[in-house]
Amino acid sequence: MIEYRAWIFTLGNEVVQGRVLNTNAAFIGRRLTLLGLKVVGVVSLIDDVDTVARYLAIALEDKPKIIVTTGGLGPTHDDRTLEAVAIATKRSLALNMDALEMLKSRYRALGQELTAERIKMAYLPEGAIPIPNPIGSAPGSWLEVGGSVIVSLPGVPREMEAMWVSWVEPRLKAMIPARCIVEKTFRVIDVPEALLAPIVKEVVNLYPGVYIKTHPIGDELGKQAIDVYVMYLHEDRDAAKKTVEEVVGALKSRFRERYGYELKVTEEEGIT
Amino acid sequence: MIEYRAWIFTLGNEVVQGRVLNTNAAFIGRRLTLLGLKVVGVVSLIDDVDTVARYLAIALEDKPKIIVTTGGLGPTHDDRTLEAVAIATKRSLALNMDALEMLKSRYRALGQELTAERIKMAYLPEGAIPIPNPIGSAPGSWLEVGGSVIVSLPGVPREMEAMWVSWVEPRLKAMIPARCIVEKTFRVIDVPEALLAPIVKEVVNLYPGVYIKTHPIGDELGKQAIDVYVMYLHEDRDAAKKTVEEVVGALKSRFRERYGYELKVTEEEGIT
Repeated sequence: MIEYRAWIFTLGNEVVQGRVLNTNAAFIGRRLTLLGLKVVGVVSLIDDVDTVARYLAIALEDKPKIIVTTGGLGPTHDDRTLEAVAIATKRSLALNMDALEMLKSRYRALGQELTAERIKMAYLPEGAIPIPNPIGSAPGSWLEVGGSVIVSLPGVPREMEAMWVSWVEPRLKAMIPARCIVEKTFRVIDVPEALLAPIVKEVVNLYPGVYIKTHPIGDELGKQAIDVYVMYLHEDRDAAKKTVEEVVGALKSRFRERYGYELKVTEEEGIT
Repeated sequence: MIEYRAWIFTLGNEVVQGRVLNTNAAFIGRRLTLLGLKVVGVVSLIDDVDTVARYLAIALEDKPKIIVTTGGLGPTHDDRTLEAVAIATKRSLALNMDALEMLKSRYRALGQELTAERIKMAYLPEGAIPIPNPIGSAPGSWLEVGGSVIVSLPGVPREMEAMWVSWVEPRLKAMIPARCIVEKTFRVIDVPEALLAPIVKEVVNLYPGVYIKTHPIGDELGKQAIDVYVMYLHEDRDAAKKTVEEVVGALKSRFRERYGYELKVTEEEGIT
């Protein structure tokens, strides 16, 4: 199965300085994963155009199918994400007529003037397609370059999510073969992670391609709790479902055998 | 004033895949900022030792005062953060006797065995100091290399925060001169960001060094709301306080003058 790699860039001082929780990264990371892409990294950077351009160029070396950026598309002097995209892809910013139309009709509807700061939002990297913003003002940008797409969306979560769902995701789906992810999590109480580790290793070897990970989640009623996450990405949902069930079964029975007592499994998530 | 740059690495597939919100990045970003450091970027990466080592090496080129990593210190096969730190800093992992002592007394207290998976957690990059973990098992690592410190902490938020507060922050404070941050946020209703932009630019020019940023936060009762954030980093708290008050005053009076109506300011944060 071909691997489609993805990177996420969430841009803005308020993110790196911890003044907001990075919900955009979680939203996009989850959506890309459910589409069957492999998210390799999430990079949050200050509003510095050279730093952003440099890290975008490094991410492009990874030959990702997609890079998604959020933030820095607005009308203010430090909204310079598309300039960074232009530098990283060695092209200019140019006034995009379709983007200008979007802004004109937006401000006409609001009864507001099209100031210089607002026209700035119609400058996209050469060759980019503007993404309509159904809620706010700044259009997004879809730029295909080499085998990669750089998608730039606003940082306001409501705008970003609306543009993702209505415009970006349908296009992405059309670009990559349909896949599905089957995942299951169960919680083990009172067996330390280090004792689960060798069993997980065994089962990983039996089912290559299935992703298994243990997450210590701290104490529960004074006892150590570990979430065991099992995930399989496959073209066929039923085959994937069957495999995940087998893996979960194999893990549980080995945990039980090895530790000689009834394993305390307290929670299961449904298959998605 | 010397600039102390900082990078944060939050490692783990569950972060990049959006299965958890990255609260660790927000916690550390906020604490570093309040100490007067300039957080340049937050990088979240999958559990792949080569990818992590590569990005750590790139961040080190930035000559940061500190790089903080979270995650990947546990006993399982994919907990390989310290291996990545070792590769990025061109040194080996070695069994650290102090770290081993911490693990021994931890498992003695729990009445559990010191398995191979557990001993693995005592291997630190050569020259590193282990950071005691008052809540969980995995010790952290404090490694000084060139002019930078690489601090590695566990990914479980409760453990990371306890180690940060009790051990890391006091040492960091001793390394850099005392500074304070004064910040104030006020909310403007019903004036579009693009109309605030030229005024912000004016005031930025009058007060170089003061950081001013507008954040569109979506609609409030059907009207556009913008948070205006003013921040100043200075050795002297009273001077910083005075400057921030002046800047906030200058912004408000200009907003009022320019738009000819009483500005709707609905919320203020205290000075921290």
